[in-house]
Amino acid sequence: MTFTYNRTVRFRDTDAAQVVYFANILGICHEAYEESLAASGINLKDFFTNPSVAFPIVHTSVDFFRPMFCGDNLVISLIPQKLGVDKFEIAYEISVADVVVAKAITRHVCIDASSRKKQELPEEIVSWLETNRRDAEGAERRRLREVL
Amino acid sequence: MTFTYNRTVRFRDTDAAQVVYFANILGICHEAYEESLAASGINLKDFFTNPSVAFPIVHTSVDFFRPMFCGDNLVISLIPQKLGVDKFEIAYEISVADVVVAKAITRHVCIDASSRKKQELPEEIVSWLETNRRDAEGAERRRLREVL
Amino acid sequence: MTFTYNRTVRFRDTDAAQVVYFANILGICHEAYEESLAASGINLKDFFTNPSVAFPIVHTSVDFFRPMFCGDNLVISLIPQKLGVDKFEIAYEISVADVVVAKAITRHVCIDASSRKKQELPEEIVSWLETNRRDAEGAERRRLREVL
Amino acid sequence: MTFTYNRTVRFRDTDAAQVVYFANILGICHEAYEESLAASGINLKDFFTNPSVAFPIVHTSVDFFRPMFCGDNLVISLIPQKLGVDKFEIAYEISVADVVVAKAITRHVCIDASSRKKQELPEEIVSWLETNRRDAEGAERRRLREVL
Repeated sequence: MTFTYNRTVRFRDTDAAQVVYFANILGICHEAYEESLAASGINLKDFFTNPSVAFPIVHTSVDFFRPMFCGDNLVISLIPQKLGVDKFEIAYEISVADVVVAKAITRHVCIDASSRKKQELPEEIVSWLETNRRDAEGAERRRLREVL
Repeated sequence: MTFTYNRTVRFRDTDAAQVVYFANILGICHEAYEESLAASGINLKDFFTNPSVAFPIVHTSVDFFRPMFCGDNLVISLIPQKLGVDKFEIAYEISVADVVVAKAITRHVCIDASSRKKQELPEEIVSWLETNRRDAEGAERRRLREVL
Repeated sequence: MTFTYNRTVRFRDTDAAQVVYFANILGICHEAYEESLAASGINLKDFFTNPSVAFPIVHTSVDFFRPMFCGDNLVISLIPQKLGVDKFEIAYEISVADVVVAKAITRHVCIDASSRKKQELPEEIVSWLETNRRDAEGAERRRLREVL
Repeated sequence: MTFTYNRTVRFRDTDAAQVVYFANILGICHEAYEESLAASGINLKDFFTNPSVAFPIVHTSVDFFRPMFCGDNLVISLIPQKLGVDKFEIAYEISVADVVVAKAITRHVCIDASSRKKQELPEEIVSWLETNRRDAEGAERRRLREVL
């Protein structure tokens, strides 16, 4: 199964156009990333507070298909992919009632948190990448089988 | 039972001091308020998007007892109280592992959303206030009985 | 001259990694867009509060080259471009001390705010697009002349 | 002269009620505090990124008198006050076109950033407190003289 994260749209996610403020959808995707790390046993406090290794985002993009409103129940699915020894990418699909309303990407590099020099992905992230990748591929295969 | 809302501290809630940015705790309390409204059957989209009646906050305060870190599992309990025909107040208690880390208050007035004139609290809010108040008082009575 | 917007990085823009939270850079770009609209005489309150025409973002992307820290003086330059009768794109370049630290894009469509149907760009936006485009091209020509 | 900070209300400060989201006014007050520190020669990057001494907020409150809209030009005046050897408070008054729309308070304690133990206010903060206090008192005296 692809990892999914459920998230109600909150009042503070919205703006005066009465829909989710565009940049906030990236914050919501990052929450899905955090939840997925926690699900694979990673301690979020250690991972994000004074870590020795960090994974800053070097690129991101979002495509918006439909507006999202306060109270909407978002389902965010997340598919990460290793891009090299020191980088990975996450593809997010955001749905409301089975309709895809937005898609996003975040690309991360692995750095030493104090020197900010690139370094190889540590074991726990490689393992998180593999588990999620495998789950996503399994889901894709099942979907294709159903189609055929 | 007093209404409670569970919320993991997210990376974007934090600031460069590596703890929750002070103003964000109020956003988290407002989420608890939204969740409590939804639990009593109120449609959040209708309530917050182009409503005829609105409940703007006229006063708020927070006391911070301990820092909150990324990944912390917050439990927010919420006790609302009617203050008059056109206003109510909500008291929030935020805990991590049974230790109270912050307390907050939001005071709301009821207004006509287009004229912005004060008006009486509508039926659904009066009912939400009574249910939550009764639940909170029941919890308090049980707590006192245990103490005695 | 290309339109530029100066913006100090604030404490609340940062996260526990002690740099600007990635999604916040888009909020800062949007501020530059707002400031540019105001500079061409557009009333921001009318433009963003209950307007008849709106310009939601359908695509956005950011490339991050260097981290931004609390107190950094960002200079955001903004070059808009008309993409059709009902859409435009804005390219942002964010610099600190003359070094480009990030680049971003927002793509907007023009819709009727109540029906959410696409419609032609109104006069004031066409005029804003032309002025800013001309200014940007002038700046580019001067830069090329200096190089030659 | 009391220190003042000018700030246009941004689209992302607003919510689906088409006014400033209540918690965001505290973020805007904190910006005024940062700007006031910078005006007294304090380096914001050093002050907020990996400092040895920090000034977390232990209490805050806001009273809202009028809604604030996208594009509104806020003027935030700031009056700090020393409360003891290890704490201070800042009172903020937020105006639009000379009408006070909100008032806020933040109370800060001085701690060692690594041990989180309370410690005496350092020289640069004591000096910032005295300068701003003196300026505010001078402004108050002038105002009273005009009244008499």
